[in-house]
Amino acid sequence: MEHVDVVVIGAGLAGLSAARMLTRAGKTVAVLEARDRVAGRNHGAVFGNGVPIEMGGQWVGPGQDAVLALIDELGLKTYPSYDSGAALTYYDGAAHRYDDASFGLPEPDAVEAGRVWEAITALAERVDLETPWTTSGAEDLDRQTFDQWLLGETTNALVIRFFRLIVPALFSAEAHELSLLHFLFYMKSGKSLDVLVATTGGAQESRVIGGTHRISERMAAELGDAVRLDTAASGITQSDAGVVVDFDGGTICADHVVVAIPQTLAGRLRYSPPLPAARDAVTQQFPAGSVIKFNIAYPTPFWREDGLSGFVMSLDHAFNVVLDNSPHDESCGVLVGFLEGRHARASSELTAEQRRELVLGDLVDYFGERAAKPIDVLEKDWNAEEYTRGCYGGRLAAGVWTNYGKAVATPVGRIHWAGAETSDVWNGYMDGAVRSGYRAAAAILDATA
Amino acid sequence: MEHVDVVVIGAGLAGLSAARMLTRAGKTVAVLEARDRVAGRNHGAVFGNGVPIEMGGQWVGPGQDAVLALIDELGLKTYPSYDSGAALTYYDGAAHRYDDASFGLPEPDAVEAGRVWEAITALAERVDLETPWTTSGAEDLDRQTFDQWLLGETTNALVIRFFRLIVPALFSAEAHELSLLHFLFYMKSGKSLDVLVATTGGAQESRVIGGTHRISERMAAELGDAVRLDTAASGITQSDAGVVVDFDGGTICADHVVVAIPQTLAGRLRYSPPLPAARDAVTQQFPAGSVIKFNIAYPTPFWREDGLSGFVMSLDHAFNVVLDNSPHDESCGVLVGFLEGRHARASSELTAEQRRELVLGDLVDYFGERAAKPIDVLEKDWNAEEYTRGCYGGRLAAGVWTNYGKAVATPVGRIHWAGAETSDVWNGYMDGAVRSGYRAAAAILDATA
Repeated sequence: MEHVDVVVIGAGLAGLSAARMLTRAGKTVAVLEARDRVAGRNHGAVFGNGVPIEMGGQWVGPGQDAVLALIDELGLKTYPSYDSGAALTYYDGAAHRYDDASFGLPEPDAVEAGRVWEAITALAERVDLETPWTTSGAEDLDRQTFDQWLLGETTNALVIRFFRLIVPALFSAEAHELSLLHFLFYMKSGKSLDVLVATTGGAQESRVIGGTHRISERMAAELGDAVRLDTAASGITQSDAGVVVDFDGGTICADHVVVAIPQTLAGRLRYSPPLPAARDAVTQQFPAGSVIKFNIAYPTPFWREDGLSGFVMSLDHAFNVVLDNSPHDESCGVLVGFLEGRHARASSELTAEQRRELVLGDLVDYFGERAAKPIDVLEKDWNAEEYTRGCYGGRLAAGVWTNYGKAVATPVGRIHWAGAETSDVWNGYMDGAVRSGYRAAAAILDATA
Repeated sequence: MEHVDVVVIGAGLAGLSAARMLTRAGKTVAVLEARDRVAGRNHGAVFGNGVPIEMGGQWVGPGQDAVLALIDELGLKTYPSYDSGAALTYYDGAAHRYDDASFGLPEPDAVEAGRVWEAITALAERVDLETPWTTSGAEDLDRQTFDQWLLGETTNALVIRFFRLIVPALFSAEAHELSLLHFLFYMKSGKSLDVLVATTGGAQESRVIGGTHRISERMAAELGDAVRLDTAASGITQSDAGVVVDFDGGTICADHVVVAIPQTLAGRLRYSPPLPAARDAVTQQFPAGSVIKFNIAYPTPFWREDGLSGFVMSLDHAFNVVLDNSPHDESCGVLVGFLEGRHARASSELTAEQRRELVLGDLVDYFGERAAKPIDVLEKDWNAEEYTRGCYGGRLAAGVWTNYGKAVATPVGRIHWAGAETSDVWNGYMDGAVRSGYRAAAAILDATA
């Protein structure tokens, strides 16, 4: 039977980062990828006019040092996301234009939103990032959903609606679908709520020329034949002697394995011996968010002529988070937006044509009639993807962190867990994925030194 | 390739009930069972003294017409659970004896608990059992966890602690791990909270002589060679022509397939074409409860001498729900009890010896020093079982019913879903499992009539 030092399951950023680090340290590696492409939740597409566009994770920003260094090492370039002009918040039947910290809310509501925002920020600072379940008061923070906390914190209806939009914008899940502790952990993991929602100075600051999938493609090119596409792993057998990984049509043995696929999918491999109960339970309780992403191309970024940045949040619509996603060379105008959480679930029951109408109708409400005439519309439903089953990432409902947190990233013998959801820094982001790959690789190198 | 009319995956009550009904209607059936035994979450064990004892689901009661009729058809007998004498509720460092509706709580707290109990009962009556997501106010009921509702309903600390024990006693999950809507649905599904917690007149009224696993064993005996043990299914391919089911070492084709395993495990099969997003999401969000069950044998049921029924609830201990589980012939005394929810998770990190000490120590607090000298102790950690991965059953966290409820029991082409969690009547109970098997079989018979 074929033997390598390490088998990596999944050729997304986490798996490829691990494989690259291991290979550079002299290990032999095989990366098994179920799809016919690498890059996982990064995915490059091309508009009819030839302009490349990201249908998956696409932004990087300050503090994301691991992925930024990797981008640089691989000879890729970033450029700033478009972030000039006024933003819009739509509520109560009208668009509200703003270019300050008000998010377009009326003065008293903006003040109250700011107060809640500060309360979150202060709470998040308390979280012990490496072991959230040991945070002071963790039991109480984890017993509540974020929505529950929000309702206890404010009675302002508009502010409640506003945060019930912010949560899906970050998690593709509703405010009641995650625990307060998970929300706070995630905030601190990406530094702060301020940083997570910001473009300039924040998590949406920059884009990669040509698309973020190129990061994975360049790593895969370095790894050459070690990356095996169309090779879905199905099981892992572990013994004192090593691991044997089953895949469609074969088996391969190794000293260690890195499972670098989303947690919910990691539960779908068959393990022998079976995983410990707590580790199995993690895979039962790390559901992915729900999102359908759209990129809509226009001849020009016409909204800029009106002094708009393209950034919209709407408390009234389904297609409720929109940004300017025009390419680096400004060869056309692009708006990107998302159907998130409950809106993704409801709209997945529509036909593609109905969804397109819904999206364009909402854009007309934001930007006027010119929005009704795109030159191309691209859609990606990440929940329908067999080998992802949801984006942006997994989140933890009330109770999971305190019961099972320990099992998320702790190796089980020769099995190491990677993926954006296993990182304590920039959890859920591309940077977290890269860091998780390095962490898993370093643990294997330590064990074999 | 071998062909049968219907393949059933899972030889628990749901799968075997479906197979039996289909066979009686003239269909050829193959039942694929991963384990080396049938009966799933029913499991018979034997004490050192030869007395059989149930390590899984064990009680039946009035209103559970499907399973009661089946027991009768199969020539099995039931007998009443022991339910004479006083019960104990332990809190604030002492046991409180009662034989009324007070649950041993002090008068004012008992009154408040009764008021909350009535509020739950009234709310549950509103639930639309067949389609809980269309219940009036479903969005609001599903947005809250049960714990959140409880905290809004009462400020009585003892009453809060009491209901935070009742919930794991029913779900093996904590009050914040399920939505209010799920709790209410489950109550109404089993008629009412009164019925679910009661012995005489309720869900714990009767036991099956020899153990509940005999129900499955007798059905399997009828089905003969159609039941294939040690045959773990791994995937289902569906086309216009039929289905092909992959299992360890082979494949079998059929016109229809019944997936009669817990929802969380149903997600671990590989489906071609992939399941619709909403159906996949159900399997990501139907985690099983956490329970370690103990049966402790004594020479005699000595607690009866003190006028005790053996029923204990404790707000102070980990091993906090205990009942008399002595055999029909009273050839020895048996106490059954549970480490549930967070206590199961925490105690799973102990050694078996430490857990035994914990359990016996708690029993001594309830019943005195005689409890320290059992003749046998049997333990079953259902979360460690590869082909169950948790008991009593799956539950739905906040938001899941309203987003995905429709997908729980709706067939996907030729694939039918069965199992206790897919039943609208006695959901999560043996009776619900049997009904779900009949429902799936009837749908197939309808489709092929």
